[in-house]
Amino acid sequence: MKKLVNDPENVVREALEGMAAAHPDLIRVHYDPNYVVRADAPVRGKVGIVSGGGSGHEPMHGGFVGRGMLDAACPGAVFTSPTPDQMLEATRAVDGGAGVLHVVKNYTGDVMNFDMAADMARADGIEVESVVINDDVAVRDSLYTAGRRGVGTTVLAEKLCGAAAEEGRSLKDVAEVCRKANGWGRSMGMALTSCTVPHVGKPTFEIGEDEMEIGIGIHGEPGRTRMELKAADEVVALLMEPILGDLPFKAGDDVLLFVNGMGGTPLIELYVVYRKAHEIATGRGLRVVRNLIGDYITSLEMAGCSITLLKMDDDLVKLWDAPVKTPALRWGV
Amino acid sequence: MKKLVNDPENVVREALEGMAAAHPDLIRVHYDPNYVVRADAPVRGKVGIVSGGGSGHEPMHGGFVGRGMLDAACPGAVFTSPTPDQMLEATRAVDGGAGVLHVVKNYTGDVMNFDMAADMARADGIEVESVVINDDVAVRDSLYTAGRRGVGTTVLAEKLCGAAAEEGRSLKDVAEVCRKANGWGRSMGMALTSCTVPHVGKPTFEIGEDEMEIGIGIHGEPGRTRMELKAADEVVALLMEPILGDLPFKAGDDVLLFVNGMGGTPLIELYVVYRKAHEIATGRGLRVVRNLIGDYITSLEMAGCSITLLKMDDDLVKLWDAPVKTPALRWGV
Repeated sequence: MKKLVNDPENVVREALEGMAAAHPDLIRVHYDPNYVVRADAPVRGKVGIVSGGGSGHEPMHGGFVGRGMLDAACPGAVFTSPTPDQMLEATRAVDGGAGVLHVVKNYTGDVMNFDMAADMARADGIEVESVVINDDVAVRDSLYTAGRRGVGTTVLAEKLCGAAAEEGRSLKDVAEVCRKANGWGRSMGMALTSCTVPHVGKPTFEIGEDEMEIGIGIHGEPGRTRMELKAADEVVALLMEPILGDLPFKAGDDVLLFVNGMGGTPLIELYVVYRKAHEIATGRGLRVVRNLIGDYITSLEMAGCSITLLKMDDDLVKLWDAPVKTPALRWGV
Repeated sequence: MKKLVNDPENVVREALEGMAAAHPDLIRVHYDPNYVVRADAPVRGKVGIVSGGGSGHEPMHGGFVGRGMLDAACPGAVFTSPTPDQMLEATRAVDGGAGVLHVVKNYTGDVMNFDMAADMARADGIEVESVVINDDVAVRDSLYTAGRRGVGTTVLAEKLCGAAAEEGRSLKDVAEVCRKANGWGRSMGMALTSCTVPHVGKPTFEIGEDEMEIGIGIHGEPGRTRMELKAADEVVALLMEPILGDLPFKAGDDVLLFVNGMGGTPLIELYVVYRKAHEIATGRGLRVVRNLIGDYITSLEMAGCSITLLKMDDDLVKLWDAPVKTPALRWGV
């Protein structure tokens, strides 16, 4: 196993210590239970937004904590759900009196634990709403989910509802933005290589030198089909068609096009992917009004990409453009 | 070869087309010869800044074109110097009457071609200054250089002198900022894995499953030593010691600490690296007043990292904090 780690059991803790050392102006890190929280939390009168999930998908979610996005993130062990006590303490830490939104990716453990945490927080008198993100068109059910998995739309939803909360919207309205983003976002991913969980020490799955996996999950769980390597343009078409047909997107729609790297893909390749994805989208009459290109929801060092298409309206564009200041996403400030 | 490419001969062209499609608000792309230029170039009365080099190091340099950083970038083929005609046309395109600065990484081909382009531009009546970046403490001479290689400090120098130009400083003063950054910046890198140039189709070098290369160059050229894998903290010490001893940095100095991923390293590992690098720096009495963590000067999908330490003064801090709006680096706007 070739990794820049010390004891593999300590990788999450040490990465959190690195984040705390790097970004004291933006975040604080609480240990045992682990969560990353805005440096100025709780923000009085603002809806708090908490997300979380297994580690290994960085910068998601800890890299998205800061003004205009998340108030707190709960990192589990690598590819393992965080625990209800992490979520509960994070919820308490960000409660500014206007309620707290949980943004939950649809994985069985995440959903169950966030449900428990929400119940406990409500018993404390904190108003909590939850939105489950389930945007992955690749599979109906999966190894880790009943129903679709939550993938790339999560990043976009966190930015959008973070901006809505920053504007002072109510818990109900912030949750509504998140639900709209989930309803209007569709994603699919693919992998060229596997990835190795540090404390496991061997690749999550095997894949041949001439093979790729279409519809892969962010933990390396199987997708739709294993097939021979194809040229980038063909790969992009294999991802875009199921996305485009699912919503369905229609000519004249405004969209945000998000090309995401899985962690081990050079940026030069992500732009080759963006080129074709943009061409296919505009060829269908969609107007790509915003985009995002880079590694935002990753699977450790996996080589591959995912594509997310999110239908936009004027309100979502305004929320997308609003200032954000987090370790991984920053503009306007 | 597992890559998201079409014909490997077209990867640079298609990535540029992807950039052009993605960022029309920030950049324009000129083809044959290839260069990326600020959408609003030339900016009247402002010093123009041009850099360039082989492709495969993305986001450097094309991803740094925009307000507050570069006016143009000239991408060569992967790991191959751009040609003088690219540099000359880019220089003409950004000349706003206040002269043009060439920021050149110290590789033989880059230096020779930028020299020729500068001579030709001067013959056109454009005032040109050049600063050669040679911050890599790993080796005295290398496969591709007489003298030290130019690596991580390039990214920082481009941000700093870009801000100086945006402020309206003269060509002489902008070049002076760039020289100061080069004089005060020191870097060293390491690799866990090799990388594959698309049109070559096989790894640039071989490295064993239990080996790493300390002092590697950004084209996979050899460094100081090949050794057995070590824990992250030991790796960081092996990079930091030569850096710290070289300037030399001394207790009380303000520094910017830049932990750079080589392209295939998960962000969670870069934060493990940052944790130790920050600890070593502060243990020596340095004050880490700014930092940068992520993939900024890469070697395709190579796994590994580099560390750059840049001594800062008040002027450099002010220039670092100034607004920047490029595809890969953005804040304040």
